[in-house]
Amino acid sequence: MEVPKIDIRISYDTMKGEFKRVFLKCGMDLEKSEVCAKIHTESSLDGVYSHGANRVARFFNFVQKGWVDVKAEPSLEKSFGAVEVWNGNRGPGILNALFATDRGIALAEKHGIGLVGLKNTTHWMRGGTYGKYAAEKGYVAVCWTNTESVMPPWGGREVRLGNNPFVMAAPSEEGPVILDMAMSLYSYGKLQVTGLAGKKLPFPGGWDKEGNLTDDPRALSESLRLLPIGYWKGSSFSFMLDILAAILSDGLCAAELDNIESGNCTGCSQIFILIDPEKIGGREYSGKVIRIAKEHIKSSAPAEHGGRIQYPGEGSARSRADNLKNGIPVDEGVWERICGL
Amino acid sequence: MEVPKIDIRISYDTMKGEFKRVFLKCGMDLEKSEVCAKIHTESSLDGVYSHGANRVARFFNFVQKGWVDVKAEPSLEKSFGAVEVWNGNRGPGILNALFATDRGIALAEKHGIGLVGLKNTTHWMRGGTYGKYAAEKGYVAVCWTNTESVMPPWGGREVRLGNNPFVMAAPSEEGPVILDMAMSLYSYGKLQVTGLAGKKLPFPGGWDKEGNLTDDPRALSESLRLLPIGYWKGSSFSFMLDILAAILSDGLCAAELDNIESGNCTGCSQIFILIDPEKIGGREYSGKVIRIAKEHIKSSAPAEHGGRIQYPGEGSARSRADNLKNGIPVDEGVWERICGL
Repeated sequence: MEVPKIDIRISYDTMKGEFKRVFLKCGMDLEKSEVCAKIHTESSLDGVYSHGANRVARFFNFVQKGWVDVKAEPSLEKSFGAVEVWNGNRGPGILNALFATDRGIALAEKHGIGLVGLKNTTHWMRGGTYGKYAAEKGYVAVCWTNTESVMPPWGGREVRLGNNPFVMAAPSEEGPVILDMAMSLYSYGKLQVTGLAGKKLPFPGGWDKEGNLTDDPRALSESLRLLPIGYWKGSSFSFMLDILAAILSDGLCAAELDNIESGNCTGCSQIFILIDPEKIGGREYSGKVIRIAKEHIKSSAPAEHGGRIQYPGEGSARSRADNLKNGIPVDEGVWERICGL
Repeated sequence: MEVPKIDIRISYDTMKGEFKRVFLKCGMDLEKSEVCAKIHTESSLDGVYSHGANRVARFFNFVQKGWVDVKAEPSLEKSFGAVEVWNGNRGPGILNALFATDRGIALAEKHGIGLVGLKNTTHWMRGGTYGKYAAEKGYVAVCWTNTESVMPPWGGREVRLGNNPFVMAAPSEEGPVILDMAMSLYSYGKLQVTGLAGKKLPFPGGWDKEGNLTDDPRALSESLRLLPIGYWKGSSFSFMLDILAAILSDGLCAAELDNIESGNCTGCSQIFILIDPEKIGGREYSGKVIRIAKEHIKSSAPAEHGGRIQYPGEGSARSRADNLKNGIPVDEGVWERICGL
């Protein structure tokens, strides 16, 4: 996995232009290339480097291998009231997920709430993208995806659970609040960055090969025994997200995704629940609640252990402002590889 | 807080009968007393002692103080398509939440999915009750409640976040799977049980008064600095559940609940999202996915650190079977107090 060592900074426009060139070279049409380039650039812009620039060359590779079909379009499989099930036909995960979010918004517009189950899709990159997209249009979003197994269940030592990201977002005139949370305490990307820097993790992140809890990132990269958030709790949460993704999209669960030869979320199931706050207390009420809740947490005295008191999405908003001004950090090797495609 | 020292065992019927007598004495009518007695007894039966027998005397006390109005009925505030907003009018939390779940089921029956926002209600006791209730009728449920502040936000040392339980449930012919997860790693009940036994927590559960991470339950009962699941992640998750509960019910958030004189969830907001899998892949498909996923996690080799590999709800099902056979454990003092009411 590539990891940004943050060697150079590239402007938003340059980065997006370069990504677009790569997506066009993948065989995507102009409009789709523009969308995918924008989403990848914005992920890096918002500080989610793991799913921005760092995924572009890998995406190119997946297309070449035939794991992602850039020409595929989602097709409707079922529709009932406020619920729709779509087959992603293994098209680009970003395009399928944006499409599903738009369908969910249309359903929410009509019914107050909408559920879109998207089966047989591919990696959606940064999950927060869809929460942000919906919240910026004024909607509440609850979304998640399943993945192949990458984490042991509580009480076990072999990988049997996905690291299923869970997203919740709400609109406010000060900008959306967005939770974008994977089920392991640390990502493999974080392990690699920390390991390369010769550092320890802030808190134990899993078990080493001998079954000892450890804060050594290298030991965890080797054992593959990541700790779920909240130990047994995150293990159960991950299980539920996996089965509900499959049940609500008429799609596949982790156990089945593990048997698909092409890895990295190929064939996965995603859920998009969209709600229109205008049909409840209004968008202004959403903003009001968020303002009160933000002020509330920030009124706490700071902890001795450090860490900033922040609302979900505040870190990304800060990275965005900084990166717009100073350029988007990208590892030189990663950037060169993209430019060479 | 009372904690079961598991001194005596009471049969299901005896326990339910005694609870019913207390609820009748609270001024509840016969039918409502029957329902509340059943739910409290089933929580203890399923091993959720903290929200079964241990809450009955406290509920009686809350009614006497006027914090819960046993005569109140929910009233419809807003309705749009598949969304309804109800005012709980501070009636009994269990009855309001069951009512909301039933409304959600009716909406899901009609639209495939239904959202019920319930504002101004009272403590719903065991959150898993509503997931289980819906899943046993064949529906998928996603529910949560907000609460007053009981936990510091990440980076802060004063309580500013609720310990908002989050529930997900799905049906299968082998019995439902149910996630019922609060946002702190350990509950205050767990701290008290462990502290009374002179033991340490299995993992650090928060910060002591000086800001050191500790596994000493007594230090945490004193500092009130519980650790959210996944550290910063659970802090953000709790924030989102709080604001979304308020936004989607047109109700109050934690910052506002903190200003209500009567505590313990009085006036809180709850969300019930119900989905009919029959409108997607069918109930049999739900059962099939669950069966595959259960087998998958259980096929892992066991971890050295112990702990059982189990699906969400498996522990409760085991307690239920044991307690039905041998009687439901209850602390002698708690039981005597109930019998003396």
